[in-house]
Amino acid sequence: MSVDPALRFEVEDLYAAYAEALDGFALELWPDFFVADGYYEVIPRENYDRGLPLAVIRCESRGMLEDRVTAIRETMMFEPRYMRHIVSGIRIRPGGDGTVAVTANYVVLETLPDEMTRIFNAGRYVDLLVREEGVLRFREKRCVYDSCLIPNSLILPI
Amino acid sequence: MSVDPALRFEVEDLYAAYAEALDGFALELWPDFFVADGYYEVIPRENYDRGLPLAVIRCESRGMLEDRVTAIRETMMFEPRYMRHIVSGIRIRPGGDGTVAVTANYVVLETLPDEMTRIFNAGRYVDLLVREEGVLRFREKRCVYDSCLIPNSLILPI
Amino acid sequence: MSVDPALRFEVEDLYAAYAEALDGFALELWPDFFVADGYYEVIPRENYDRGLPLAVIRCESRGMLEDRVTAIRETMMFEPRYMRHIVSGIRIRPGGDGTVAVTANYVVLETLPDEMTRIFNAGRYVDLLVREEGVLRFREKRCVYDSCLIPNSLILPI
Repeated sequence: MSVDPALRFEVEDLYAAYAEALDGFALELWPDFFVADGYYEVIPRENYDRGLPLAVIRCESRGMLEDRVTAIRETMMFEPRYMRHIVSGIRIRPGGDGTVAVTANYVVLETLPDEMTRIFNAGRYVDLLVREEGVLRFREKRCVYDSCLIPNSLILPI
Repeated sequence: MSVDPALRFEVEDLYAAYAEALDGFALELWPDFFVADGYYEVIPRENYDRGLPLAVIRCESRGMLEDRVTAIRETMMFEPRYMRHIVSGIRIRPGGDGTVAVTANYVVLETLPDEMTRIFNAGRYVDLLVREEGVLRFREKRCVYDSCLIPNSLILPI
Repeated sequence: MSVDPALRFEVEDLYAAYAEALDGFALELWPDFFVADGYYEVIPRENYDRGLPLAVIRCESRGMLEDRVTAIRETMMFEPRYMRHIVSGIRIRPGGDGTVAVTANYVVLETLPDEMTRIFNAGRYVDLLVREEGVLRFREKRCVYDSCLIPNSLILPI
């Protein structure tokens, strides 16, 4: 049941690249981590565990992710801040149909100007990857977070 | 002196599975990560460094771990909370006798209902693994933590 | 463009060993992670992104690192504390000239006596490695941190 090393490295690199893009505020790269009909949501763990659909962010296509990036860049008002993703415990479960289920623990740190770095959000990625044009992309990415409270509003992607 | 890749992946997967079990509150899985005469302790770094035996938790067999799970499930009173393990810097040192010494840094985050996620406990795993029925298990697991203070009492495993 | 597995493991082990040395307060090992003319700096992200050279720590040789260790051991006054490095998202980009560019996210936790563990500093390593006598060492190591504020003064290496 061991995972092919090449796949393992590819998945680890994907998660590192994803974090680098977001932490580097290269938001335009973000939708490209998803397939065209990719699904992204940020949902409290309590709702996820109970099967309740209520999420704080839900995007049902790459186009919606692009719209969100445009909104962040152009219309949303928020104090500038730095984000920092720490990801740990990546688990890879290849499916028989070419998909790859991946889970990982994450914590996102936030630093506002002239403030100390603090924990912004922590939880678990529950993801489904597919290979498209030779590249692994998210078909589904769920950020299942532990707290119902989020400092400031949730603007930047997890 | 490089570690065999298969062993490396197996150890990484073990630590990811361990974190997943605890963070998913699947406590019944926890004793199975240990051999029957496995040893588990949570000890402040100051005591560990000085060779002082005083630990806040010490279990000297899998049976004691099982008793602890029963106690958590049935008799201990505590506010429900989410835990989140982040593990980094896994170092693997195979011994000549079939054991595998492993160290890693960890931080456990805690989220209480309607509170922000905070640091619960951070430190270093100092572990000894053995292979049993083809599976790597803990013969010894020491959670050597940095702070003498722990928010609330220490109930759930580290 | 995939990285050779042996190099990958070697880099991961280097970062784990680096963290272990610092967290174990084995400061005398620290300069050995660098080549003789190695460069080390701790710089706020804002300055790094704008190309401003102002750093809070800059050492331009292994000798300067050794001097710093001597200063920490013998002349600097500071309250004892534990540090804990968590490193994630290591990205490896081998150069054509035998160098290896590596980036990674880090968070350093700090624990003072009788206080809770807290976030000391978070950011991104932007490093350049070279092989010397068969061993990978830092030619450049930049700790690009997210916050302009640092609790207490910055004494121990990041």
